[in-house]
Order: sequence, then structure tokens, then C-alpha cells
Amino acid sequence: METALERLLPNPEHAPQTLHAAMRYSVLEGGKRVRPLLAFAAGELVNADPARVEIAACAVELIHAYSLVHDDLPCMDNDVLRRGKPTCHVQFDQATALLVGDSLQSLAFELLASPSLTDSPARQLEMIKLLAVASGSRGMAGGQAFDLASVGQALTLPELEFMHIHKTGALIRASVLLGAHCGDTLDETALTQLDRYAKCVGLAFQVVDDVLDAEAPTATLGKTAGKDAADNKPTYVSLLGVTRAREMAHELHHDALAALDGFKQSQHLRELADFILQRQF
Amino acid sequence: METALERLLPNPEHAPQTLHAAMRYSVLEGGKRVRPLLAFAAGELVNADPARVEIAACAVELIHAYSLVHDDLPCMDNDVLRRGKPTCHVQFDQATALLVGDSLQSLAFELLASPSLTDSPARQLEMIKLLAVASGSRGMAGGQAFDLASVGQALTLPELEFMHIHKTGALIRASVLLGAHCGDTLDETALTQLDRYAKCVGLAFQVVDDVLDAEAPTATLGKTAGKDAADNKPTYVSLLGVTRAREMAHELHHDALAALDGFKQSQHLRELADFILQRQF
Repeated sequence: METALERLLPNPEHAPQTLHAAMRYSVLEGGKRVRPLLAFAAGELVNADPARVEIAACAVELIHAYSLVHDDLPCMDNDVLRRGKPTCHVQFDQATALLVGDSLQSLAFELLASPSLTDSPARQLEMIKLLAVASGSRGMAGGQAFDLASVGQALTLPELEFMHIHKTGALIRASVLLGAHCGDTLDETALTQLDRYAKCVGLAFQVVDDVLDAEAPTATLGKTAGKDAADNKPTYVSLLGVTRAREMAHELHHDALAALDGFKQSQHLRELADFILQRQF
Repeated sequence: METALERLLPNPEHAPQTLHAAMRYSVLEGGKRVRPLLAFAAGELVNADPARVEIAACAVELIHAYSLVHDDLPCMDNDVLRRGKPTCHVQFDQATALLVGDSLQSLAFELLASPSLTDSPARQLEMIKLLAVASGSRGMAGGQAFDLASVGQALTLPELEFMHIHKTGALIRASVLLGAHCGDTLDETALTQLDRYAKCVGLAFQVVDDVLDAEAPTATLGKTAGKDAADNKPTYVSLLGVTRAREMAHELHHDALAALDGFKQSQHLRELADFILQRQF
């Protein structure tokens, strides 16, 4: 992934140099690459050529990276530390960070339009639509808007779930489904099961994130710890307490694995569900 | 265009309501729709179905609208008036404006992936790539980065042209080429001529903009007048003076029309070149 991302990002010696340097700064050297890993693992289910999955995985990771850059801006979460480094707007400036996010989004769609992604342009158009919907106002960006509107509010558990299903869940589901679109065609039932796996993993990821934010030190996180509580943001921990939140993560992990029962070659998807849970406990 | 945009933008009664309302606020009721008009006029050259051109035209206009919303933010141009209305971040807030721009960009690519756009998915992937490149760091966003870096700098005429060819020119060229991709296939020579027309029109548009900014009152412009000079931004007027800038606009207009010489059904493209020039003189 690092090599692939390194290769596809614009050359920092080409104008506009600062923008290109800032794009590379925001994408390279850091991040767990969970979404790409999910895409590769889903690709294995359908015997996909890894060179093709790599393109889809990079597109998803660029969308994720853009969302982090914009999310860290002062008008959003106002965060100064990300992946153990100063955030983009701190290292460069806010205007550059804004354009970095905008440009990374464009680059993601440019990648998905690449002729080398599939043999079926029609299927590729479906993949582009899938990523666009997952990124936009009925997906990730919509979840962020809901998140902003909920600061200081007393959310119910279904409302919190609605927010996360959009804010982080949509892109995680897109990662799995895009990977699965790179190989043999799956029937509707299999796609629904895979989507169920992705939904559970996405929510588990968020529950674990909330627990980590409440418990882990900043140095371990690579981002500012305790920030959600300080910002008075509703989290699974603030709503359920740490103990129940941990239990919920375990239940989601169990449901994710159960959704894979009908699949062969699901070993890596299973391991990723384990990894997401075991980030802490 | 108003009806089409109205129809495709998310319903403001659907969550997240504020984001959807702000997206509609930023796109509807305003704007000259120059880019859609160029797409429709180029579509006429190739006997394109207007219902198909409309999809491409809306996609380009959404990218344009997103760029205005982000460009107006305090960390960029910090403008409070756009199309005679308060800018998005003034009417709503900065975080919402950021997400409006992000979501409009996603929506543009979702649209271009629509199965009803063409009969050729392969050609449609080319169109998506074209719009993505025109929008990203080697297109519009790159031009904005160059613009930011040039505030207070003494640019040469070629540098100013480089900036505008990216900042506004890239999307104007994309408008013309996307319209031309919606119908009969053009050969390379014809596409090059059409691109030349678009390049001249795009630059003429910018030169006229600079003259208008220097001379017209705010009420006529619908945005804050004299802002470029106040911000110490290099413009064609600051570099060449008003008289030479006007001459340059006329020369570009002439070159644009000359590039259309080989085409039948180019009447509307010609009229648009006239319109762009005659916004002022």
C-alpha cells in the first residue's frame, strides 16, 4: 500500500509544489490502512487480482485521508495531532489543508476510473457510484454533519449508531464491497452477508475507538486522547460506560464472524475483525 | 438546469437536514450557469441527446459550486457575498460549508457514474477521469493553490496565465469536452480545436472577470467588488492595465471563434463566446 500510494500521488517537484507535498504528507507514512486491508481481504473471497484490488484500496484510502485532513481543521474537530504528526493545517496552513482534502477526493475518483481496474467498465461505474454515495451527504460527510450537530446533545443509542454507520461505517462497507467487486461476481445473498460483516466491523471499530479515546494515553493513540469527552461529544462510552461498550464490541465481533459463515477464503476478513477488536482488549 | 439541479440535490427533509439545506442553498437560485451552457452548446456539435448532456452539465456545475463554497471560506478568500446572497459559511457555518463542498464533489462523480449518461461505459469512465483531473491538484484545486501562493507576489504574465488555465480554465475546458463526449465521436483534430476554443473562452472569462472586479460596483457583480486589488492579488488589470486587458479579451474572443471554423452547429458556442466577452463591453 505504501508503495502504491507513493507512486500514484503527484510528484512534489511538480507545480503546485506545496499542495503536492502536503498531499503526500497527509497520506504517506502513517495510518493503519484498515480500509485497504479490508479491500484486499474481501478481494480474496472472489479470487481478485491483487493488482486490481490495490487500485480500489488506494481510492478508498485517499477518501479516508481527505476526510481526516478536513476533519482536523479548526472549524471541525480542531485537532493538532494525527498519526503521531502535526495535522496538515498545522504543518502547512488551513487553505492548503482544504485543497489537500479536495484534491485527494478528486484523485480517488480518477483512480477508480482507471482502465486497468476491471474488464467490465459497467461494473466499474457501479464501483464509482458506490464510493461516491459512501463518501457524500448520505454517507461519510453526512455522518460528520450529524456528528457536528450532536455536540453537547444527549443522543440515544440508535442516533449514535446512525451517526457512526454514516461517519465511519459507510467507507468501511465501501472498502469491503469494492474489494469484492474486483473479482468473480457474488450473488445478492453473498453481497448482503458481506455487507453485514462490514457493518458489524465498522461499528466495532467505532466502539473500540471510543474506548481507546477514553482510556489510552496520547502517545499510544497518535492523536489527542480524551478529546471526545473534552469536546462533550456523545460516544459509546459516555452512553453505555466502558464495561458495556467493551461487551458491545465483542458482540459485534461475533456477529461479523457469523456473517462470514458461508464463505471460503475468509481467513483474512476474520483476522481483520480480530485485529479491530484487539486494538485494545 | 435549475429544474435538473433541484431534482438531483438531496431532499432537505432527509437527514442530515442542515447539510442538505446548505447544499441546495449553495447550488440553486443563482449563478450564470456558464459551464452547463458550454456543455449543452458543445453537445449540439455532436447531436447529443440533451437529457444526457444535462447529466454531465449538472456534474460540472456541482464541482463549480463546491469550489465557490470552499473558495469563499475565511481561510481562503474570506468572502461574505456570492451571487447576491451571503456565502454558505455566513448563512450556515464554516464546518457546514466545508462538508457542503465535500458532498457536492462526491455527488458530481455519483452523477457521472449514472447508467443513463451514455451507451458506452468505457467512454463514461474517460469522462469521469477527465472531470477528476480537471478538478484536482493538476486542475482547478492546483490553480487555487497557485493563486494562494501568489498573493502579494509579482507574477509574470505567463505565470498568471498558468494559474488561470488551472483555476478556472480546467473546468471550463472539461465542460466543453464533457458535452462533446455525450454524442457522436469526434476525431482527435476536432477535439483539439474544441479544446482550443475552450481554452480561449476560459482565459477570456478570467480577463473579463478581472476587468469587472476593477470597475463594476458590488451590486452589479453580486459579489464584493475591488476585492482582488484590496487583497493585493495579481490580475490581468494589475499586470496589463484596463485598456490592454480589454484588448486581450477581444483577441481571445477572436481566437475562440476561429477555433470553431471547421464545425457545423457551432452557433451556440459562438454566442457563448460573445456573451462572455459582452458581460462588460
